[in-house]
Amino acid sequence: MADRVAPPRSLTPTRTVPVTRVGAEGVSRTTDVAAAEEPLDIRLHGRSFAVIMRTPGEDRALAAGFLLSERIIRSADDIGAIEHCRHPDQAKAHHVVDVFLRGGAAARVPEMLANRREIIANSSCGVCGRATIEELVADIAPLTAGWSVGVDVIRGLPDRLRTRQSTFDETGGLHGAALFAPDGSLLASAEDVGRHNAVDKSIGALLLSHFAQGSRHIENRDLTPGMLMVSGRVSFEIVQKAWLAEIPLVAAISAPTSLAVELAQEAGITLLGFVREKSLNIYTHASRVGGV
Amino acid sequence: MADRVAPPRSLTPTRTVPVTRVGAEGVSRTTDVAAAEEPLDIRLHGRSFAVIMRTPGEDRALAAGFLLSERIIRSADDIGAIEHCRHPDQAKAHHVVDVFLRGGAAARVPEMLANRREIIANSSCGVCGRATIEELVADIAPLTAGWSVGVDVIRGLPDRLRTRQSTFDETGGLHGAALFAPDGSLLASAEDVGRHNAVDKSIGALLLSHFAQGSRHIENRDLTPGMLMVSGRVSFEIVQKAWLAEIPLVAAISAPTSLAVELAQEAGITLLGFVREKSLNIYTHASRVGGV
Repeated sequence: MADRVAPPRSLTPTRTVPVTRVGAEGVSRTTDVAAAEEPLDIRLHGRSFAVIMRTPGEDRALAAGFLLSERIIRSADDIGAIEHCRHPDQAKAHHVVDVFLRGGAAARVPEMLANRREIIANSSCGVCGRATIEELVADIAPLTAGWSVGVDVIRGLPDRLRTRQSTFDETGGLHGAALFAPDGSLLASAEDVGRHNAVDKSIGALLLSHFAQGSRHIENRDLTPGMLMVSGRVSFEIVQKAWLAEIPLVAAISAPTSLAVELAQEAGITLLGFVREKSLNIYTHASRVGGV
Repeated sequence: MADRVAPPRSLTPTRTVPVTRVGAEGVSRTTDVAAAEEPLDIRLHGRSFAVIMRTPGEDRALAAGFLLSERIIRSADDIGAIEHCRHPDQAKAHHVVDVFLRGGAAARVPEMLANRREIIANSSCGVCGRATIEELVADIAPLTAGWSVGVDVIRGLPDRLRTRQSTFDETGGLHGAALFAPDGSLLASAEDVGRHNAVDKSIGALLLSHFAQGSRHIENRDLTPGMLMVSGRVSFEIVQKAWLAEIPLVAAISAPTSLAVELAQEAGITLLGFVREKSLNIYTHASRVGGV
């Protein structure tokens, strides 16, 4: 088609992010390749049906599969057209897929839109979108805690989390999260099939401690979490949870997404990935890591 | 308190499930321990605010942390009470946590309930709840495809999925999914930061093939997916997606949740976990696996 344009660069599934790598050979400033995480607005007949967080690419397939899973369509026969939006601003257009149904499915679209559950189905559930970063930044102050923690303390966190993952040992099927004070002492830990639940449980356990003590604010220094360690990957939502709980350092065994790095930068959060005994990557705010 | 009862057994974080284990030493019928996945209804002042899928345990902490993440509360100071429901039917009560706020937060509850996004935040997003299994069973016929596939073909799937995970190789941060025909030929594959997205993309790619061909139904045998292979764990929602796409065999590198096993049993889906070159576990409908 004459007005079809090439997919913008941002439809690629990866983003290059700067990283400080700490390894046996010392400290180096380099770049890392992060999985891209960006919102996709799936529209029915031009109206937003769901916004989901996804890795760009195969967006039309994602929209079709999502609508099958949501029981909006039953087969390819229900699809009339399925295209990226032709908005002249490509930065907006590539985050929108318009789906037009046909036959009986098309007739049910008004009802589907009215009954939709405001589906917020992102890569690990929660609030979606780049716009959300701007909204969060406008609403919450970046974290400014000035303490630092030794790189040796951080390297020891995976083992300390691991010893708390008793159900993982049994099942091989649970995510783990743990909160540590800035001095490295363990404050809370939890396991769950959902990685975001493991984080919520850990943060909630501290909240309940405050509640039980009748203390007035999470700012109670005795229980203020300094560091969150998670067993898997770090998505946008994990960093958002840390920000809201005022946890200035997030460390993960595995990789962060592009949006997690971006949000951590804005939130004043030190984000670490691939934390192992011998090495780790610092993606943002490296000044909180001593000895680097 | 006099009316406080001990937590019911189902609050434990694991479930024992029967399994057929295929290994170097032959085939054995035994049991496996699966991570429990069950819905939790988080209520504000007695009215449902969100239903989330979680591993039972630390439910009060989960509710507190979730409400902080959702910006319903800002500190422990906003919590007036947070308790499991005292419903006389313990099977219901242990899936409900009632939260009562206080101060300014309490005054905002009616507004919060009115504005809530019908949060469907489960372990990997989607439809929630045991009730949902009954609803699905009432609405969709179990899959009855009678073909079988050799255990050697299944053992080879992880490697074949792995070769399609090019972005994982770069980032270490993406889930992969692939669809195979009953004869083992690859039909579609995808990667995404969300495991459910990788499945939706794979299924959607087949839908788009049908759409492009103008074929009328997913039942087109040339493209009917027989097997779904995923790179990680299998939750309830992944099995649900397979059911809706009429895929009768789901295989995973890692563990299934308890609810995934339960739904696969009801759906007529053959569910396999810990699929490796030398061994694999069959949780349901083993008759589709030949040579066992």
